[in-house]
Amino acid sequence: MKPYVIGIDMGGTNTVFGIVDARGNVIASSSIKTAKHSDINDYIDELYTELSRIITANDAVDKIYGIGIGAPNANYYTGTIEDGVNLPWPTPIPLANLVSNKFGIPCAITNDANAAAIGEMTYGAARGIKDFIMITLGTGVGSGIVINGQLVYGHDGFAGELGHVIMKRNNGRICGCGRTGCLETYCSATGVARTAREFLEVRTEPSMLRNLQIEDITSKDVYDAAIAGDKMAKDIFEYTGKILGEALADFVAFSSPEAIVMFGGLAKAGDLLMKPVKNAMEQNMLSIYRGKVRLLISELKDSDAAVLGASALGWEVKPAPTAPAATPVAAPAAPTAQK
Amino acid sequence: MKPYVIGIDMGGTNTVFGIVDARGNVIASSSIKTAKHSDINDYIDELYTELSRIITANDAVDKIYGIGIGAPNANYYTGTIEDGVNLPWPTPIPLANLVSNKFGIPCAITNDANAAAIGEMTYGAARGIKDFIMITLGTGVGSGIVINGQLVYGHDGFAGELGHVIMKRNNGRICGCGRTGCLETYCSATGVARTAREFLEVRTEPSMLRNLQIEDITSKDVYDAAIAGDKMAKDIFEYTGKILGEALADFVAFSSPEAIVMFGGLAKAGDLLMKPVKNAMEQNMLSIYRGKVRLLISELKDSDAAVLGASALGWEVKPAPTAPAATPVAAPAAPTAQK
Repeated sequence: MKPYVIGIDMGGTNTVFGIVDARGNVIASSSIKTAKHSDINDYIDELYTELSRIITANDAVDKIYGIGIGAPNANYYTGTIEDGVNLPWPTPIPLANLVSNKFGIPCAITNDANAAAIGEMTYGAARGIKDFIMITLGTGVGSGIVINGQLVYGHDGFAGELGHVIMKRNNGRICGCGRTGCLETYCSATGVARTAREFLEVRTEPSMLRNLQIEDITSKDVYDAAIAGDKMAKDIFEYTGKILGEALADFVAFSSPEAIVMFGGLAKAGDLLMKPVKNAMEQNMLSIYRGKVRLLISELKDSDAAVLGASALGWEVKPAPTAPAATPVAAPAAPTAQK
Repeated sequence: MKPYVIGIDMGGTNTVFGIVDARGNVIASSSIKTAKHSDINDYIDELYTELSRIITANDAVDKIYGIGIGAPNANYYTGTIEDGVNLPWPTPIPLANLVSNKFGIPCAITNDANAAAIGEMTYGAARGIKDFIMITLGTGVGSGIVINGQLVYGHDGFAGELGHVIMKRNNGRICGCGRTGCLETYCSATGVARTAREFLEVRTEPSMLRNLQIEDITSKDVYDAAIAGDKMAKDIFEYTGKILGEALADFVAFSSPEAIVMFGGLAKAGDLLMKPVKNAMEQNMLSIYRGKVRLLISELKDSDAAVLGASALGWEVKPAPTAPAATPVAAPAAPTAQK
């Protein structure tokens, strides 16, 4: 078996990619601007040129087993990026085919949270765990669900949108999805900032947070204040953790996982967040689950996590439907021969 | 492959069982009282005697592929019935082993709702559907989740307790599980009766239901009144359906199923319940799922459903760990030789 995979993390601004070995070491990495080209083929060409360069430089020609891509609204089944994303090209974008045809290497795509789950299972905190739920706490709340060692895609490829489970059915916060009360309006980094603004308006007690411009407050500001001992900032994490713990208790009733793995900026708040999460989860869980579900923090380095997650999907590509021939570009020696 | 399986539905009062063919025809069936014997071995003996009788009478000796049992708190992985059930024997009860040793036929067990899901997939409304959620609306609300053609058991065998997802976090109804606000306190048959009592107390409008003893009202009474045009009774189904639909919308965000299959007395209320369920589900669903999830009603005949569900598990037994030798009992010719 070929010793490397390529992981590509396609964001709205940057596309970061790297060559990764079976132990999760990033051998080499680089990036390009995602939105530079108005034609998707030009984007693919630049990606190919830049990846070919680092593949050649690292003696990895003919050693790439598969390519995995994490991208917004990416559908594993169809290999396409669906509607509703902030990219300069018309959707659906047949990304998996474009890349596998160009490189002559099989390629699979999925969304970022699913990629994170596969990454955690392959190289991180979920190694050896066959049933777990990955929760990514970033600008939004994402999730990837693994059951019996397999990522859950659902019948259409869209399973695992746990950030959009409704936590407040009355008078809930407006969500970017157009509904109200979604988990991610409370438990994302932006949710923490919203809670801060709410608390500052509704409460009268003093707080370090009052020294900041209320519209500019970030979850990082709340974290810093909490670490400095600010009572209101600590309350904000309590509030956030309680809602997240309540949500996790319900998720457990679905798939009875061995562990829940947290990733993202907020997950690094440590006990400030994790203590109330754990307490609320245990308190709200059906008794048969109590004390059985491990709460874990991601073990993937932040800077590498997205590329690692995407690369892990590269180990799961089906070798069969590989494009018959690669389309070499001018630039460096094309590392495309595959059998 | 042997042409029959045996399905056993073990309830607190009766144990019903039957011989079933690959198309879901119940060739023969019978039952015994579950709680008659204070020793579990006497129960197993009677089950064996009675099953041997119908096996012999139907020329099915040596033709049984496997035995499936649906039982309360039955754990598929361990083959045991766990704590917290209303049975006359000490738990955990190693039911799968007791039965497979006695019969010399491999045996698997699971809980009723999981058995119903496998039954629906094997013989019923979910044939050919690889991703669906089974919801059983009986005294409680049970569920069985199928992902990629496989029942979800979770890491410990206890996945799929969707009746205990919290639907009201404040001031919710007390549940038999010791918590408050669980789905089953609203959307089970008993939940419908509770709603009727609440509405009768809080509202002042006239209703046919006021002619009944308020403590004795059942979901059937509410159904009859609604069919007769009673406004309050119809409102009760609206209320029930709305909560169930809201819950289903969240479940869809987990596994993105192709269908949700409903089973049980309440499911037979037809449009009275299903219309508000469908409306609330669609309204509360994340847009990517809207209009894609089919709401189906079980296609298994009520009288046979439990035995069929259990029997379907009989097709999934692993032939390997069969007991080396059967333990024939005195009664009829022992139909136990298996290779």
